[in-house]
Amino acid sequence: MTKRTVIALDAMGGDDAPDMIVAGAALARERYPDISYLFYGDEARVKPLLDRHAELRGCSELHHAPDVIGSAMKPSLALRQGRASSMRLAINAVAKGEAASVISAGNTGALMATAKFVLKTMPGIDRPAIATMLPTQTGECVMLDLGANLECDAENLVQFALMGAIFCRAVLGISQPSIGLLNIGAEELKGHDEVRTAAAILRERPIPGVFHGFVEGDDITAGTVDVVVTDGFSGNIALKTAEGTAKLMSHFLRQAFSSSLSAKLGYLLARGALHKLKLRADPRRYNGAMFLGLQGVCVKSHGGTDHVGFANAIGVAHDLVTHDFNARIRDELARHYGATEPVAPLALAEDAPISSDGDA
Amino acid sequence: MTKRTVIALDAMGGDDAPDMIVAGAALARERYPDISYLFYGDEARVKPLLDRHAELRGCSELHHAPDVIGSAMKPSLALRQGRASSMRLAINAVAKGEAASVISAGNTGALMATAKFVLKTMPGIDRPAIATMLPTQTGECVMLDLGANLECDAENLVQFALMGAIFCRAVLGISQPSIGLLNIGAEELKGHDEVRTAAAILRERPIPGVFHGFVEGDDITAGTVDVVVTDGFSGNIALKTAEGTAKLMSHFLRQAFSSSLSAKLGYLLARGALHKLKLRADPRRYNGAMFLGLQGVCVKSHGGTDHVGFANAIGVAHDLVTHDFNARIRDELARHYGATEPVAPLALAEDAPISSDGDA
Repeated sequence: MTKRTVIALDAMGGDDAPDMIVAGAALARERYPDISYLFYGDEARVKPLLDRHAELRGCSELHHAPDVIGSAMKPSLALRQGRASSMRLAINAVAKGEAASVISAGNTGALMATAKFVLKTMPGIDRPAIATMLPTQTGECVMLDLGANLECDAENLVQFALMGAIFCRAVLGISQPSIGLLNIGAEELKGHDEVRTAAAILRERPIPGVFHGFVEGDDITAGTVDVVVTDGFSGNIALKTAEGTAKLMSHFLRQAFSSSLSAKLGYLLARGALHKLKLRADPRRYNGAMFLGLQGVCVKSHGGTDHVGFANAIGVAHDLVTHDFNARIRDELARHYGATEPVAPLALAEDAPISSDGDA
Repeated sequence: MTKRTVIALDAMGGDDAPDMIVAGAALARERYPDISYLFYGDEARVKPLLDRHAELRGCSELHHAPDVIGSAMKPSLALRQGRASSMRLAINAVAKGEAASVISAGNTGALMATAKFVLKTMPGIDRPAIATMLPTQTGECVMLDLGANLECDAENLVQFALMGAIFCRAVLGISQPSIGLLNIGAEELKGHDEVRTAAAILRERPIPGVFHGFVEGDDITAGTVDVVVTDGFSGNIALKTAEGTAKLMSHFLRQAFSSSLSAKLGYLLARGALHKLKLRADPRRYNGAMFLGLQGVCVKSHGGTDHVGFANAIGVAHDLVTHDFNARIRDELARHYGATEPVAPLALAEDAPISSDGDA
């Protein structure tokens, strides 16, 4: 009998929830037949949707959640008042060991705060970071943080670099990943205090990779480094600016191909290749960002995605679980902190011994 | 007799200076026959280059500058030790009324600090901001700041919004430009203190435009607003990420067109339209960012551009001068501050009465 991969879904998070969540789950299930789902949401709205998918129904449990975390709710309020929300109950399922991972397309700040509170951070990590893979001219890179931490001190950035490098080793199989700190110039004196101090620490402290130094916005897609580290404000703006620019280029391309008869004919001939390009640059393909540094697999989907994008986020969670990446990251972190004396004091997770509950 | 437009050039700033500067000046001169140049740089290096262009020589004066501001030099040091630098002497030419504008592709921080010190800010503006036009799905937008001010308080952001709106009225002819504050979400509670306070002020204080609220990275190219306001750190990262993403898409496109015989034929047929697209998305076309808020026209060129991009930066300076935009911005600012009681105290330029020296 195949091992089941149980995934908890916040059925109410995202612009087109719950429809998009259920349709995405059905699509992902076709790709990954070993998945079972725990849906958390408004039973009256989710049940009729599930009933339309016989196959999906057979591998899903629906748990009623009376509350929903609104997209504008403050994280602190979501934490206090959201105990019966679809998001919180889905995260609880991971903490209790009932699910191997949780996915939400809801309020990022609330998801971050709740997941951190319920699942706890790994030893040596003060704050989890949102990470994603991005396409580059030479392959792919990992970028973090993408919006979990608006203001980061130097030590946070150093921890993100460490997690990004370990993730890169585990996921991309690059044994000595190169790490760049996002800045507005490559020179040492550029940037604000936090990035300059983080760079000074990264030049001294042993990390499982090579510190490249500062990188600029255009280095992200150039493939200059394997890991791009930044604070959540700049990272989120960079990510969304890249998405917007890709859309603009597609828009220009469509205009170009309809600008003359010859161009239209050219489009017909090149259609197959252009379709592949479209798939390659489709932001939905890169949907599903991981919270790195949590004792449990938690994936954030874009709130504005459709069922195709949400299915990809489920794919990310599935891969993280089946390859046991979170345990590998935790083990590498433990090895790293065990082998090297931290240069600066690091706050350890205050409330719990390492438990494997959350990690599948 | 045609009125001459005298432009001072820092011949030593930029990766490929002085060659790229001289070649760019020659190209721009073909487009704008009313331009005269004042070159500031190392005579031994610049003179031979000028001598190759008879036409250019005839409309240029070369002034020897013994020093160069290095790309890694701290702005404060550039200010103290750069008195005989090509950058400083070129800026001085505007302050003395010998040139109508100055262009440099050198160290941004040094250019900003020196231009602010020599030319002074307009009344009501604490810090100048770097602004540029960017292509959008619906036309163009203005974005500022792009790297002059790494950390901005709420009042700085409000002043940028004001300058951006006035610039938009003057340059794009949009009487009520819409203004967006770059943030990581559209909800009021998102973002750090500075952007939230700036939004609160912009909702209250009269501005020559309409405050749209927060915008995200993908709104820049979507054309959601006419003016995108942000701090220099995020703005620089957004701008360069957009450039990098455009390059990545072009790279993917080239790969797509060479992936099969049919795609290659398609490329041949669509070549004309694709060439227009390439021109449209060429970052060199958008080279030349203005320092808004200075009493004098100062344009920053990308340091890594080539002579085509540098010629475009000269075009930006030429247009600003011939349309007397800086005087219009100054007048609108004066009208704005004269007509409306500032809600919060505004620091006025401390060192000088308004002088029109710098404005051509």
